[in-house]
Amino acid sequence: MGRVAVGIEYDGAAFHGWQAQSHCLAVQPEVEAALSSVAGHPVSLTIAGRTDAGVHARAQVAHFDTGSVRTERGWLLGTNSALPPSVSLRWARAVPGHFHARYSAVARTYRYFILNRPVRSALAAGRCHVVFAPLAVETMQEAARLLEGTHDFSAFRAAECQAHSPVRRLESLAVWREGDWVRVEARANAFLHHMVRNIIGLLLVVGRGAAPPGRAREQLESRDRKTGAPTAPADGLYFWQAHYPPQFGLPDDSAIISAPELPAG
Amino acid sequence: MGRVAVGIEYDGAAFHGWQAQSHCLAVQPEVEAALSSVAGHPVSLTIAGRTDAGVHARAQVAHFDTGSVRTERGWLLGTNSALPPSVSLRWARAVPGHFHARYSAVARTYRYFILNRPVRSALAAGRCHVVFAPLAVETMQEAARLLEGTHDFSAFRAAECQAHSPVRRLESLAVWREGDWVRVEARANAFLHHMVRNIIGLLLVVGRGAAPPGRAREQLESRDRKTGAPTAPADGLYFWQAHYPPQFGLPDDSAIISAPELPAG
Repeated sequence: MGRVAVGIEYDGAAFHGWQAQSHCLAVQPEVEAALSSVAGHPVSLTIAGRTDAGVHARAQVAHFDTGSVRTERGWLLGTNSALPPSVSLRWARAVPGHFHARYSAVARTYRYFILNRPVRSALAAGRCHVVFAPLAVETMQEAARLLEGTHDFSAFRAAECQAHSPVRRLESLAVWREGDWVRVEARANAFLHHMVRNIIGLLLVVGRGAAPPGRAREQLESRDRKTGAPTAPADGLYFWQAHYPPQFGLPDDSAIISAPELPAG
Repeated sequence: MGRVAVGIEYDGAAFHGWQAQSHCLAVQPEVEAALSSVAGHPVSLTIAGRTDAGVHARAQVAHFDTGSVRTERGWLLGTNSALPPSVSLRWARAVPGHFHARYSAVARTYRYFILNRPVRSALAAGRCHVVFAPLAVETMQEAARLLEGTHDFSAFRAAECQAHSPVRRLESLAVWREGDWVRVEARANAFLHHMVRNIIGLLLVVGRGAAPPGRAREQLESRDRKTGAPTAPADGLYFWQAHYPPQFGLPDDSAIISAPELPAG
């Protein structure tokens, strides 16, 4: 038996999330079916970070075990030809048996794309969150700095979150503007359920001046989700990258994947 | 009566082209219905350049006449709220009565996006043409130079083209690579039916080495479409910009529209 890791890109708008649910189209069964057709046996995937309905992935990582011998190119091209247009493999790589897409990951990065202007974009529909009123990026940055570090993120956690501990290490939370686009990048050892979208929700409240940056600390210290800002929509959220120790020799996403940009800002 | 010009962005994958056809969703009737709801009377649009099924627009230009008085912001926001996500207005501007979206245009620019790598992109699906084998951009550039200028483009014209003359002035035909992306930009006083896609078809044949760059001149001189390379798919084509004399005071698309990029290259 060998273990294979794959990088997966998908358009979240086409799926009801990663995980199979009754009567809903999900990413996982599509990728498993395509890999199975190449492997010649049923394949089951373990993933770095599950995503909700509408959330996109630039480079999700998953692993599976197989007794079949294929080249990396064979896995890659064969699987892509069996997948629908809205999901694709970016890479495939043989990994040691102790590699685990979820437990070997030392960090995950998400990005959130906000189109900030009075006019929406047809070509970016479903790929971003549109905010008509101008956002004050500086105050969003101030609030973001208050959230960085190791904290109890109970106030940013969905009611249905199943994690044992609400403590996470938010390694960085960057906010920057490029023209009409405001982008947020969050990197943490791991995220609670809805944590990124709840953080974005707070940053949006602060950015439009409805609360001071200090609200970030208040919400954090309340440890109460009920005090929180509304959850930001899924459309703007991308699973950007999973980070693994270099010993596993996974492709460097930042090198092999050319800078993804949203369409027609 | 006043005349109003509008800039229109649309996702071509969602429509069967600009013009209404029986039982097919088209862009024009959608935009006319939305503008009519703001105007309070039926609006009919005249456009800079019709597009085929699957072809996108970054900034299509159209005009209409109205007796209703609305601010530019009123036209813009009202119309966008009545349009489906796959089409949006970028701007609206009152123009002199002698402005004509088609006849006042001194040139049109199209762009074509080719994703050139062995692996397709889920997030760019329907927004580009994917070519797995490496393209030689230098020979494509050589072929492109042979097509620039004023020529009889009969060999690049669809059989159903209704233009009186096959002569067009191709002001520039640029090909360049950015990472995995090969982009082509064509600017002409006007284009024949399928002219851009037939030119791209030839450049693709040359780029993969199946014909020398000189094939461009041969095809041109044959004046015979039957000698031509296959028409390139619509997915990669964008109506990029219509150019008007400065006296009309239209918004400068290159300034008001932030650099459009395709998703997740």
